[in-house]
Amino acid sequence: MTGTLGIGMVGYAFMGRAHSHAWRTVGRFFDLSLTPRMAAICGRDRAAVAAAAERLGWAAWETDWKRLVDRDDVELVDVCTPGSSHAEISIAALEAGKHVLCEKPLANTVDEARAMAEAAERAAARGVRAMVGFNFRRIPAVALARQLVAAGRLGAIHHVRGAYLASHVLDPEFPLVWRLQAEEAGSGALGDLGAHAVDLAQYVAGDHIQGVSALTETFVRERPLPDGSGQRGPVTVDDAAVFVARFGGGALGSFEATRFAAGYTEGLRVEVNGERGSLIWELRSLNELLFFDGTDEPGLRGFRRIQATEASHPYAGAWWPPGHTIGYEHTFTHEVRDLLEAIATGQDPVPSFADGLQVQQVLDAVLRSAAAGSAWTEVRP
Amino acid sequence: MTGTLGIGMVGYAFMGRAHSHAWRTVGRFFDLSLTPRMAAICGRDRAAVAAAAERLGWAAWETDWKRLVDRDDVELVDVCTPGSSHAEISIAALEAGKHVLCEKPLANTVDEARAMAEAAERAAARGVRAMVGFNFRRIPAVALARQLVAAGRLGAIHHVRGAYLASHVLDPEFPLVWRLQAEEAGSGALGDLGAHAVDLAQYVAGDHIQGVSALTETFVRERPLPDGSGQRGPVTVDDAAVFVARFGGGALGSFEATRFAAGYTEGLRVEVNGERGSLIWELRSLNELLFFDGTDEPGLRGFRRIQATEASHPYAGAWWPPGHTIGYEHTFTHEVRDLLEAIATGQDPVPSFADGLQVQQVLDAVLRSAAAGSAWTEVRP
Amino acid sequence: MTGTLGIGMVGYAFMGRAHSHAWRTVGRFFDLSLTPRMAAICGRDRAAVAAAAERLGWAAWETDWKRLVDRDDVELVDVCTPGSSHAEISIAALEAGKHVLCEKPLANTVDEARAMAEAAERAAARGVRAMVGFNFRRIPAVALARQLVAAGRLGAIHHVRGAYLASHVLDPEFPLVWRLQAEEAGSGALGDLGAHAVDLAQYVAGDHIQGVSALTETFVRERPLPDGSGQRGPVTVDDAAVFVARFGGGALGSFEATRFAAGYTEGLRVEVNGERGSLIWELRSLNELLFFDGTDEPGLRGFRRIQATEASHPYAGAWWPPGHTIGYEHTFTHEVRDLLEAIATGQDPVPSFADGLQVQQVLDAVLRSAAAGSAWTEVRP
Amino acid sequence: MTGTLGIGMVGYAFMGRAHSHAWRTVGRFFDLSLTPRMAAICGRDRAAVAAAAERLGWAAWETDWKRLVDRDDVELVDVCTPGSSHAEISIAALEAGKHVLCEKPLANTVDEARAMAEAAERAAARGVRAMVGFNFRRIPAVALARQLVAAGRLGAIHHVRGAYLASHVLDPEFPLVWRLQAEEAGSGALGDLGAHAVDLAQYVAGDHIQGVSALTETFVRERPLPDGSGQRGPVTVDDAAVFVARFGGGALGSFEATRFAAGYTEGLRVEVNGERGSLIWELRSLNELLFFDGTDEPGLRGFRRIQATEASHPYAGAWWPPGHTIGYEHTFTHEVRDLLEAIATGQDPVPSFADGLQVQQVLDAVLRSAAAGSAWTEVRP
Repeated sequence: MTGTLGIGMVGYAFMGRAHSHAWRTVGRFFDLSLTPRMAAICGRDRAAVAAAAERLGWAAWETDWKRLVDRDDVELVDVCTPGSSHAEISIAALEAGKHVLCEKPLANTVDEARAMAEAAERAAARGVRAMVGFNFRRIPAVALARQLVAAGRLGAIHHVRGAYLASHVLDPEFPLVWRLQAEEAGSGALGDLGAHAVDLAQYVAGDHIQGVSALTETFVRERPLPDGSGQRGPVTVDDAAVFVARFGGGALGSFEATRFAAGYTEGLRVEVNGERGSLIWELRSLNELLFFDGTDEPGLRGFRRIQATEASHPYAGAWWPPGHTIGYEHTFTHEVRDLLEAIATGQDPVPSFADGLQVQQVLDAVLRSAAAGSAWTEVRP
Repeated sequence: MTGTLGIGMVGYAFMGRAHSHAWRTVGRFFDLSLTPRMAAICGRDRAAVAAAAERLGWAAWETDWKRLVDRDDVELVDVCTPGSSHAEISIAALEAGKHVLCEKPLANTVDEARAMAEAAERAAARGVRAMVGFNFRRIPAVALARQLVAAGRLGAIHHVRGAYLASHVLDPEFPLVWRLQAEEAGSGALGDLGAHAVDLAQYVAGDHIQGVSALTETFVRERPLPDGSGQRGPVTVDDAAVFVARFGGGALGSFEATRFAAGYTEGLRVEVNGERGSLIWELRSLNELLFFDGTDEPGLRGFRRIQATEASHPYAGAWWPPGHTIGYEHTFTHEVRDLLEAIATGQDPVPSFADGLQVQQVLDAVLRSAAAGSAWTEVRP
Repeated sequence: MTGTLGIGMVGYAFMGRAHSHAWRTVGRFFDLSLTPRMAAICGRDRAAVAAAAERLGWAAWETDWKRLVDRDDVELVDVCTPGSSHAEISIAALEAGKHVLCEKPLANTVDEARAMAEAAERAAARGVRAMVGFNFRRIPAVALARQLVAAGRLGAIHHVRGAYLASHVLDPEFPLVWRLQAEEAGSGALGDLGAHAVDLAQYVAGDHIQGVSALTETFVRERPLPDGSGQRGPVTVDDAAVFVARFGGGALGSFEATRFAAGYTEGLRVEVNGERGSLIWELRSLNELLFFDGTDEPGLRGFRRIQATEASHPYAGAWWPPGHTIGYEHTFTHEVRDLLEAIATGQDPVPSFADGLQVQQVLDAVLRSAAAGSAWTEVRP
Repeated sequence: MTGTLGIGMVGYAFMGRAHSHAWRTVGRFFDLSLTPRMAAICGRDRAAVAAAAERLGWAAWETDWKRLVDRDDVELVDVCTPGSSHAEISIAALEAGKHVLCEKPLANTVDEARAMAEAAERAAARGVRAMVGFNFRRIPAVALARQLVAAGRLGAIHHVRGAYLASHVLDPEFPLVWRLQAEEAGSGALGDLGAHAVDLAQYVAGDHIQGVSALTETFVRERPLPDGSGQRGPVTVDDAAVFVARFGGGALGSFEATRFAAGYTEGLRVEVNGERGSLIWELRSLNELLFFDGTDEPGLRGFRRIQATEASHPYAGAWWPPGHTIGYEHTFTHEVRDLLEAIATGQDPVPSFADGLQVQQVLDAVLRSAAAGSAWTEVRP
């Protein structure tokens, strides 16, 4: 399949801006089999969505996502809304025969995520593709880490660590935004930050979490309403979650997601220790991968700081000569590139909705364990 | 109390060498109220202990620890044996009116540790002092971290992390030494490494762990006997332990101890995140403390790398001008200095045997939780 | 002045790709008084330039730069060619009343650079603007460093260090490309890399180099011709240059530019030490600034690692929430944004051609010093 | 030669304390052919030297260095005085048939250093040995770096960098101590700090500096007299020196020594870039060596952080198990160990007085270049 593909995007906040940049940019740097056309954007506020369309480069706009899905010029729906509407929009789009890119976490509940994965499976049978947006998999250094583990360079994996430390809401006067309300966000630090750490750790390790023992905490239980009324309302999500885990292959896992780690802003970190080596990656220095090769000669072993900016590294050759770093937004450009290629070549993209469901099942086990007083809790398939 | 204090040491392996250096060196750098005399050393092998006495600077030697304890010129017994004999020797010494310095972990079981703490309490009533050797508390950067938390510079503590990552036995052909056998070592990575991480984290945070959910694993279950016979025996301790914890003050804890982290040798690390700041310390760069001060002016906040080598920093003034680093062995010199001063001034030294017992109770809760399938397990007082 | 501004670009290699991205992107993230229209691109190879126009987003193309300059729809000429043609194109464009953005180094010789600066001065009198492309000034962390020095946070400056370490041509079989030939490139590592280090160091320090003593070296003197003939030709530029310098305000400078530093790819680094503090910035971790504030309380001083991704930091607010990093190409987006605003508000942009001339004069003093056996050489105004 | 060797030390300040620790400690950790006896210490103040003897572990004391040299029980004289008396004491000791360890820099002038080197050569013919105390050569990571270069792991050397950045006297009210007076100290930052950087860089690179262009500066020209009189006197040494250099083998050198770099305390750093790799070492993290091996597989190259604490690393096996770090004072213990072994085996120790002279000649060339307005200045043999 070649030619162009009409894109429709729902949502135009942080993620919408990032995805728009990706759709605008991908064809400028990558050779594509299928070129995206930025057909239409959708948002509820007429003036705001019109301005966003102009600013972000979309040809048209809608105020009802159902109309967006119905448009003939929209062949792929990019879902950038809060988690509570992911399922409805994605399933409707898939059933309408539109490919879907859905932001993470896939849904707010396992049930919704399962319905989405089932819809994606049905759609795939008709050649309609679905992908969940775990964008950090697309960082060259992360993809390189995955390659090294897959090539057996680490041998059997003994330890996996994942953390996403942040501090956005450390101030008790930070208002009660939607991300702090369970109905809209599903969970707190866990779904927002922990989902990334879980997905990345499983991806790099090439293995799945089987069970967890978890603790969650809400350090600030009431916050000012964002309406400026001066009133306060209850925070209904976790501020932080920590858990230990077992992987299918026998590795021990240690995970942490928090919005209360002073000094950290986007402190995502993944580490894997195996029989023959270790890998460490941090979002703070996203172009670099630390690699300990236990087969280096004795006496000269040490973690190597590899800058993954060479043409031989995943994605990196499309950008600049070696040594020139890329940033956060490139993750989305790589993501849509891979999705376009999967569609063009008739393959199911990864991470699939099934992958997104599996992450959701891990998050669900974490919440169930925490609710049960940190009891050991299997990840329910 | 001034003058000299006769020291007798049991054991002359790794810890014995380190303690001997401390006893020889402390008076050369610190102004002491009480000067140690290195009276006698004890070991079971006559030729070896005689050679050790000569090499390490002890005036006499014994082959039976009971004779060492009985010597009139021994006023303090320094217990550097494996954990299985800590209780017997320490209690006997205390009952004989000798001060005791006992290596960590205090004992192999909670029962032994409790008996030791009780003996120490009885002894204290008679002015006889006991201390457990959590030497890393005595690193200037660690002691500075404690001072900052105690002064309220971090506010309420939200997160505590402790890890001791190592890789000594990653090779499956590494022999079945005593540290891999439960009878002698009590536990594996947990007691050997985890005990340090737990003590340090609690010390810096100024709070105690109340309960845990834990996983342990023995990755290599059989190893060659160290006798060269070519036969193999079962490893009866943990190779690794990971657990989450709750502290009394509400902080969440995340802990890890392992001998299977490729690329790490003595990877001890403690981190505390509070309302107003964070602290990070690593043994690898033991002279440095990372401090994030959330009260720094906005836009210019960041982790500061403080080199704790100034005269104003704990212990540091006794050594060299600012900027000249110290190493591992200094921890023991500081330890015996503090013990000597406590004895001289008639105060109970810290960490006390009760502190050692409390760490043992945490380790015990970890093992009980792991044995119960990672069930939530309270630390039993 | 508001509305749009027609852009014409000469060159479509590495710099052409980077500038095109900037012109495409700037209006998507920044509020502009003047919106760029990507009117036409110019290159000598008809097929290649047509393909580049399509790929990079230019509305039209030319094969003769003079025709590009003459186009009515081109109001600003962006010069992305090798240094040997900078003067001719830039001066012609300025005289034709077109604003100019010229890549660095401004020219291959001081004479050319002076002619350009004079042309820019004449043009400015007519409201026509010129800017030289020292893009690294536009990194948020670098601009923050400049702000701190300008605000007096460091006091008087004692030391300035600048280095650009690379290793592209370490392999003696790397071919004799134009960058290794004096006629086209002017100088080697000095003009290509050193120019950035000199400009950045002077910019952050807020001071100018007055004189230098320099050494240059060509480690590999003959290389294979790039035509694949198997023949070799002489390298006529420096592989490396090192020099010491005095600044007008009394600071000592130490500089280095090399293509022979194994392990470095784009190792640009600037450091300033003053009475009251120090600043360190490295391209490798371009989002971060290290700041030592000598007025921090005694005993708690240390270099702070500041991540310059907050809304309060220069440029950063236009992109993503705090903690999300940007990369190399953003420097150009910031550069064209500042140029557009200068044009819109009728101000002379910085760095000006006069600034570019001054850097060229420093490089010239370096080459003269090296040619004179490392004699002390004043920077000739 | 086996048995014991009587040591006499002149000076008991900073260096005296460090050397005393080394003499006390060396036999406790290293197997020695020749055991030191700490016979006598010498200082001008009777009460102070007596107290120092007691504190530092010397059997006797003298107030006149000539009497120390004459003592029958002194077979080796350890010169820890300021540079102005190095020549007189060392030459007298050598002529009296006593081995000599002399602190660095070897002397305050080239003439003195040459006389010392000649005296050492004459003495060597009689089996009397002399060594200059460039202690940092004895750090395991530094010695490992030397081994790697000597083994050809870096190939031909292109760049050598040495720096010693400090800030002790940044405060203009810091008093006019002897280190700031030319008569006693010879030079300022150059001899005190730069001598170490020059020696280390030459040692690791295995090559000598042939010529330099240098700048020096005295930022604070008058300081309060240390007598508390409130009067001020002129600083007669350099606060900072920077220079570029050529090595015999063709490498370019870049050096810096300063007491005015805010944020640095003992910022000694050496780096070497060669055809096939690079090495970086810093005193701040003295147990580590950064090694870039250009022969690592493409795409996985990067600087490795090697912790030089393994039994296979120079000196490290004498101390603790791998991963346990050593500190500043160990450099002296290693130094006296090597000296004792050289004496025992009848070999000339390194660094020799001739090596010390060569460093002095480099420093002299730096001062002559600076005095001549940064003219190129050959190192005079």
